[in-house]
Amino acid sequence: MKIQPVIMSGGSGTRLWPMSRKALPKQFLKLVTGRTMFQDTALRVCGKEDDAYRDPVVICGANHGPIVAAQLAEIGIQPAEIILEPCPRNTAAVAAVAAAWVARGDEDALILLAPADHHIPDAAGFRHAVALGAKAAKARNIVTFGIKAQSPHTGYGYIESGEQLFPSVCEAAAFKEKPSRKIAEQYIKDGRYYWNAGIFLYRASAMRDEMARLAPEIMAAASQALDKSAMSDGALRLDEAAFSACPSNSIDYAVMEKTDKAAIVAPVDVGWTDIGSWSEVSSQDKSDNVICVNADNNIIRSDGPLIAAAGVDNLIIVATGDAVLVARRDNAQDVRAIVEELKKRGLQHLL
Amino acid sequence: MKIQPVIMSGGSGTRLWPMSRKALPKQFLKLVTGRTMFQDTALRVCGKEDDAYRDPVVICGANHGPIVAAQLAEIGIQPAEIILEPCPRNTAAVAAVAAAWVARGDEDALILLAPADHHIPDAAGFRHAVALGAKAAKARNIVTFGIKAQSPHTGYGYIESGEQLFPSVCEAAAFKEKPSRKIAEQYIKDGRYYWNAGIFLYRASAMRDEMARLAPEIMAAASQALDKSAMSDGALRLDEAAFSACPSNSIDYAVMEKTDKAAIVAPVDVGWTDIGSWSEVSSQDKSDNVICVNADNNIIRSDGPLIAAAGVDNLIIVATGDAVLVARRDNAQDVRAIVEELKKRGLQHLL
Repeated sequence: MKIQPVIMSGGSGTRLWPMSRKALPKQFLKLVTGRTMFQDTALRVCGKEDDAYRDPVVICGANHGPIVAAQLAEIGIQPAEIILEPCPRNTAAVAAVAAAWVARGDEDALILLAPADHHIPDAAGFRHAVALGAKAAKARNIVTFGIKAQSPHTGYGYIESGEQLFPSVCEAAAFKEKPSRKIAEQYIKDGRYYWNAGIFLYRASAMRDEMARLAPEIMAAASQALDKSAMSDGALRLDEAAFSACPSNSIDYAVMEKTDKAAIVAPVDVGWTDIGSWSEVSSQDKSDNVICVNADNNIIRSDGPLIAAAGVDNLIIVATGDAVLVARRDNAQDVRAIVEELKKRGLQHLL
Repeated sequence: MKIQPVIMSGGSGTRLWPMSRKALPKQFLKLVTGRTMFQDTALRVCGKEDDAYRDPVVICGANHGPIVAAQLAEIGIQPAEIILEPCPRNTAAVAAVAAAWVARGDEDALILLAPADHHIPDAAGFRHAVALGAKAAKARNIVTFGIKAQSPHTGYGYIESGEQLFPSVCEAAAFKEKPSRKIAEQYIKDGRYYWNAGIFLYRASAMRDEMARLAPEIMAAASQALDKSAMSDGALRLDEAAFSACPSNSIDYAVMEKTDKAAIVAPVDVGWTDIGSWSEVSSQDKSDNVICVNADNNIIRSDGPLIAAAGVDNLIIVATGDAVLVARRDNAQDVRAIVEELKKRGLQHLL
């Protein structure tokens, strides 16, 4: 049975402003490798690399259909479908749409639901982890992936592993939100906790049934939005009225914390990073358009202007043609406050 | 007897990179007021404001004749002459050219030699100081202006005042280069030391004769460059071969430290600032294209791109369309190192 990848590409990536913009969010930028994070994600789970995978379904923002099509064409991947969200409704709605879309063809097909903005250097290792999870998913578990924690990171969620179900697969005993530093350190010491990669493997019918039981409004709204969807410029546009009515919730809250079918493949050790803020992006301080004088440990990125840094350390400096960000490396979250201020001032053209 | 202002406008202003460029150095930028520093300087010493002054002579870089003409036209000032330096040869050469040019018409005329890149909020107070110095200048002294020191600044030269010659005018007993912090503090405590404003008042013949005695090569080369000069596009272009042969030296070294005719008007308390680095330029952090979140005491300037600063203090952040500078406020001199690096890398288009 082939696996159906569904790539969640609806994120806005505001914490990577000023490069990440509404019109071109971070997943469509070449921030980490020579390809965009979306392209790397698609290549990681496509049939070209591993014939266990079908062509991907992509679920993205209303205006991003042409970008998705163009970026897939560039790497020679034909999508099974591009599905447009009329408005953002968080990951539970996306999981529900994915389950409903796949169940139309084969309700027992395996879905691999993966965000478009993660960086995973060891793609083969990742596919191996998926293969390990397949047996549990076939047994109707909703399988998560537990990343071997490299540090007591306070920006990630954690999953507590329970009893073993299959080789390398355990029950997922509990889902923990982003912890305090102290609690994160306890998790690391304890050894049963893993970073929650936010990637899921499940039979379409298993997710559909669990969601119908645990989050019926979400499942109903998503199904209706799909039933009333229409093709437009080569993409499937979900019905706006139906999808707008869908409650906005994360799949963790809506399903994973409540279901007794949660499982975890762990430890997954593939170099996984959630490229959530500038802190996770490598610096270009040795590049042609950057000059550093007595300046160390800065994250410097430019998509055009020359950046000259003198006598400064531990800063984030990012420049585009129309905006410049200067922030502290240890306060990468401040970028959110800047984006809020841009909204307040009505500077929509910079968002 | 009217005073002939000569405005020295040949500076390159590299420490105000990236806004100050070879093609448009700092004196031609609106950095401090609604006018450029050159325009403010011209208005301060022109006949429109005070009929003691003749129309100004401007001595500027080879490529800046059209900018000078345009910026003077904008404020309704007709220059007596625009003199182009084929290459930079420091202030002694400029003083020599000024003396030779003025002496052609009236060798005993008073010259006020003033840099184009100083900020002097109290223009009337400055003209009052010039009037106080005129008596000493007429007596063939070379008159300097001693600014009442506001702090033990280590970026300025100091003048030690000696015995009184005229009301508010003393002998200039010694010229001191930029001091260490400790010595600057001693100067302040002593009370006889003033910031050297780099502005001079003298009879054309007095400077010509002192320079012929103390720096004969400079006076000879400057005179020859003027004798062989030619009009070109409305400006007088000094002869390149003759002017290139002129030794490059400052007027302080070449003349003031050696002459026994140096006098000082002091204290001059007119808010004088040498806009030599970003530290002396006011921030635009409250402007429309700047957003600060938990960011204090930064000097932020943009001529276009939005600048967003989060969680950073005491920085200089300057952005133009093609370059961004991030430096420490207390290391404003680092900008020079950046400009050197730009030269090394052959990035002439950014200079």
